[in-house]
Amino acid sequence: MNIYAKRIESIRAMMRDNGWDAVVVSGSDPHSSEYVAERWHQVEWISGYNGEGDLVITASHAGLWTDSRYFIQAGKQLPGTGIELHKTRLPESVMIPAWLAETFKDKETAVIAVDGLCQAISAIDDIKSAFMATKVRIVDAPDMLDVLWIDRPAIPCSPVTIVSDAQTGRSRADKLAWLRQHLKSANCDAIMLSALDEIAWTLNVRGTDVAYNPVVMSYLIITHDDVQWFVRKSSGADDVSEKSFAELARSGIQILNYNAIDDALRQLMRDNRKLFIDPSSFNYSLYAELAPDRIVTGKSPVILEKSIKTAVEIEGMRKAHYIDGIAVTRFLHWLETSIHSGAVLSEWDGAVKLGEFRSTGEGYRGDSFETVSSWGEGAALPHYVTPNDGSTKIGNHGLFLCDSGGQYLFGTTDITRTVPLGPCTDLEKEDYTLVLKGHIDLAMAHFPDGTSGDQLDVLARQPLWRKHRFFGHGTGHGVGFYLNVHEGPQSIRQGFNRQPMLPGMITSNEPGVYREGMHGVRHENLVLCVDTGEEAFGRHWYRFETLTLCYFDTTPIIRELLDDDEIQWLNDYNELVYQKLSPALPDDVAAWLRNKTRAI
Amino acid sequence: MNIYAKRIESIRAMMRDNGWDAVVVSGSDPHSSEYVAERWHQVEWISGYNGEGDLVITASHAGLWTDSRYFIQAGKQLPGTGIELHKTRLPESVMIPAWLAETFKDKETAVIAVDGLCQAISAIDDIKSAFMATKVRIVDAPDMLDVLWIDRPAIPCSPVTIVSDAQTGRSRADKLAWLRQHLKSANCDAIMLSALDEIAWTLNVRGTDVAYNPVVMSYLIITHDDVQWFVRKSSGADDVSEKSFAELARSGIQILNYNAIDDALRQLMRDNRKLFIDPSSFNYSLYAELAPDRIVTGKSPVILEKSIKTAVEIEGMRKAHYIDGIAVTRFLHWLETSIHSGAVLSEWDGAVKLGEFRSTGEGYRGDSFETVSSWGEGAALPHYVTPNDGSTKIGNHGLFLCDSGGQYLFGTTDITRTVPLGPCTDLEKEDYTLVLKGHIDLAMAHFPDGTSGDQLDVLARQPLWRKHRFFGHGTGHGVGFYLNVHEGPQSIRQGFNRQPMLPGMITSNEPGVYREGMHGVRHENLVLCVDTGEEAFGRHWYRFETLTLCYFDTTPIIRELLDDDEIQWLNDYNELVYQKLSPALPDDVAAWLRNKTRAI
Repeated sequence: MNIYAKRIESIRAMMRDNGWDAVVVSGSDPHSSEYVAERWHQVEWISGYNGEGDLVITASHAGLWTDSRYFIQAGKQLPGTGIELHKTRLPESVMIPAWLAETFKDKETAVIAVDGLCQAISAIDDIKSAFMATKVRIVDAPDMLDVLWIDRPAIPCSPVTIVSDAQTGRSRADKLAWLRQHLKSANCDAIMLSALDEIAWTLNVRGTDVAYNPVVMSYLIITHDDVQWFVRKSSGADDVSEKSFAELARSGIQILNYNAIDDALRQLMRDNRKLFIDPSSFNYSLYAELAPDRIVTGKSPVILEKSIKTAVEIEGMRKAHYIDGIAVTRFLHWLETSIHSGAVLSEWDGAVKLGEFRSTGEGYRGDSFETVSSWGEGAALPHYVTPNDGSTKIGNHGLFLCDSGGQYLFGTTDITRTVPLGPCTDLEKEDYTLVLKGHIDLAMAHFPDGTSGDQLDVLARQPLWRKHRFFGHGTGHGVGFYLNVHEGPQSIRQGFNRQPMLPGMITSNEPGVYREGMHGVRHENLVLCVDTGEEAFGRHWYRFETLTLCYFDTTPIIRELLDDDEIQWLNDYNELVYQKLSPALPDDVAAWLRNKTRAI
Repeated sequence: MNIYAKRIESIRAMMRDNGWDAVVVSGSDPHSSEYVAERWHQVEWISGYNGEGDLVITASHAGLWTDSRYFIQAGKQLPGTGIELHKTRLPESVMIPAWLAETFKDKETAVIAVDGLCQAISAIDDIKSAFMATKVRIVDAPDMLDVLWIDRPAIPCSPVTIVSDAQTGRSRADKLAWLRQHLKSANCDAIMLSALDEIAWTLNVRGTDVAYNPVVMSYLIITHDDVQWFVRKSSGADDVSEKSFAELARSGIQILNYNAIDDALRQLMRDNRKLFIDPSSFNYSLYAELAPDRIVTGKSPVILEKSIKTAVEIEGMRKAHYIDGIAVTRFLHWLETSIHSGAVLSEWDGAVKLGEFRSTGEGYRGDSFETVSSWGEGAALPHYVTPNDGSTKIGNHGLFLCDSGGQYLFGTTDITRTVPLGPCTDLEKEDYTLVLKGHIDLAMAHFPDGTSGDQLDVLARQPLWRKHRFFGHGTGHGVGFYLNVHEGPQSIRQGFNRQPMLPGMITSNEPGVYREGMHGVRHENLVLCVDTGEEAFGRHWYRFETLTLCYFDTTPIIRELLDDDEIQWLNDYNELVYQKLSPALPDDVAAWLRNKTRAI
């Protein structure tokens, strides 16, 4: 019995002692974060599996729920643990709430213990609604692992830095005033923010508490008179943080202990205050402190406000894409010339080298997510995780796919390029061209005010659909300003999301095609929604401006598959890339890029 | 005071006598029909206005709610009545429920009388939910107009005809067996159908009780053992109907009085039967007969089943489009040659002539809706109603727009052609070409199973959006088989409708552009969703097959605005039209069509 199987048996002993029928352990943290600090690597501690996903343990079953990005990884890491893989995001998927309801359908009342601190209210509501009214009892056991997990890491406490008004174009005083207006119109006395990027945006602060997302583990309560930031994890903090805290204190923000949030919520309830919360990020354990008649639930207003970048943020994002484009171009030049000169390189070597190029850029603060460096079969997995050990050797033919991004003091990037490293098959060329055609058609879109991403999505898919090629992921996600690389509220996808695209929103444009065991293609740029300034037919007209600056390789293109306006877009784009980047590139790279960007 | 103002005063007297604060009168009938028999021209009797719309009368206000199709008509017909126009389907529109709630917000309890027989349950629910819980009382007064409207027409009772299994490809026995399966899985004892096209489809019957929709005014109740058709309006019927009734009786269908429906529902409730109803077509008056715990509400299963045409229906629809295409082609030839030879023709003359050409076609049973024959300014109104008196004279330049359709024993058609009658402006040419480009892009679409019309909609709009041109109506509606020209559940529109497109569904493809006071363009064909037979990427792949057969005039086309594949589609389509239709056309028309359909 391996260590993970033993840990699961320990949990089962705890379940028997407490009369629990099932335990649900989330892969998230108390803030519904996508990336979480080590303290909340609960799923990994129990199972040894270190991808995304949630665990359910019953007396006779242990299951991991995750999506196709992690099937291979789970397949390698789960054997020996006794944990079964439950595949999500497939038409036949049975999610945790439905699975629990089915498993315990013959029980009078199922007792389900959850790590409520890491469960959003909405997740627990989903479990409750899957059961007939009285058939389930939820037990909140946020500390259940603590007795077993002796060396569990502490809550992270990295230096807190300030982003200046000159960086963001909008002061925290202004943001707080705006939030108080919202409180007024929602007829509330207070709002609590739990989502870490919402807090970082509101206070103009950043940190490194979790990987890739430059955020600070904390809670924030704003009333008409006070701002309470629950952020300290111990009595003293590092010098950088103390300086930041002092500046925040000068703006009237109270710096409090992270763990004081419970008391503060209780006090609000005692004072009979009306509190606004967002159930999609507010955790279930804290929810227990609240009186149902004193809360107003809704989507946090920060989500939309944050997505509309200020003029200063937009300029910063342009700069970030310029610096990032130089790094990616130098990397692709290095890769192609190395491979052509016979170098033996693994996918991991590629990821490392790209990181090196990026790290020399002005304002670089780290990657915005884990680099996907993939060739051949690996690229056929839309969310491939490049293993640092034993990754595939990059060949001198076919397609190399690299999805990566950087965090800069003035912006966040996310780019995918698929490039040929030698001869390509006809199928590779067709897929390459059709994905590019879809990418361009979306990039060229114009649309009236009120149009949402789910209404635009098919523009990127139709060139592929016409040839019966399908990709199963979204076409675009929102991107933060020196913040999370995945943010809402807008998206470009088949699934329902009627949030209108608004000027100032930055969204990815990333169609793809993946052929299992063969190859994968994805072409991704970030696009800014801009107002054309034209009004016609009673509507305002918007379009996308592409921010990303990196050439698309033209050699795999089957020219007949592109229309004239698509070719024009491509030639204009590649020329723009050359004009913008070449002055900053070493001569040999600039000469190489000149060739790469010639009009077709 | 004109006669309508007097009628409104009589209604107000009735309101005072009964203590009603408001009266709501629907433009529909007891079956939520789009086209209604004269007996239910209630709005017209009260107001003199004969378009679509609903009336609300209070002590101090009388209002008509209708959409942009009828603004002009209402503007002509309402003056003198004291009725104000409330515009619907605009961003700033306030619909009847919200208007009532606002008007009576200071009242303890508003008493609102409704013609419940002509109100769907869902419409009354909307009124109730617009008010705070106890602030409204609904009084059902279905006969309120009877005392004032002395010569109110009787319920129509036109001959009932049978459509044979050879016509539909599916017997009523089979349809009833399928419906009983549905009852079983919904755990119900009975289902009641109120929507007239659903009844006609289920029983394989047709009638002429209302204009354009070949249906029979009736209700239908199906249990596991019985079928009760509530259809007779008097003791005896015409010979045709008696013959049909006899055939239906032989299939075990009880022929009952239309007015016996109340008793039958009461009996079902007394027998403690569980009844399935669709609240979007079930009327509020009948709903009073039902016990809330004995009903199951949901979307009628007939709506989806009816939309998927049988192989026989599809063949019939093809034939209908062939015959209809001949009529429309002959009409367009007549129009062009007449205008060019100097004839003076009004829009109405055009509509009449088209009706003549259609009426000579095999199996013709009437028009499927009121012909829109419009030139210049009239065409700029997307839902122009051609007046029989004083319609515009058709000019020898610019664009003529004609939207029309026929009912045939073997199918239903709906076609819009916009044709030049002489020199066109550059703007007319651009609009003409861009609308056609959108039409073609949608016609060429391929898509995987599960794709809905709201996901495809932007394909028809994007060529227009790229040039900042907008149209405010849906791109496509479902079309019945020798039944209603507008049917669900599928549609192609910006509004949310996630009903997947399924093989066998027939939908219109009708983008447009309208410039007030100048001109309008719409290009409409019907398309059949077909399975390509290919499976790839784990999905079944579907496409559209265009059913409509009538040339698109190529002279206004600006060729550079079309891509090669769009030009190919257009040339192929026009050639197909010529090959199919020319053998059946008079020589001079065939020669003319040869010229019209030459490749560009």
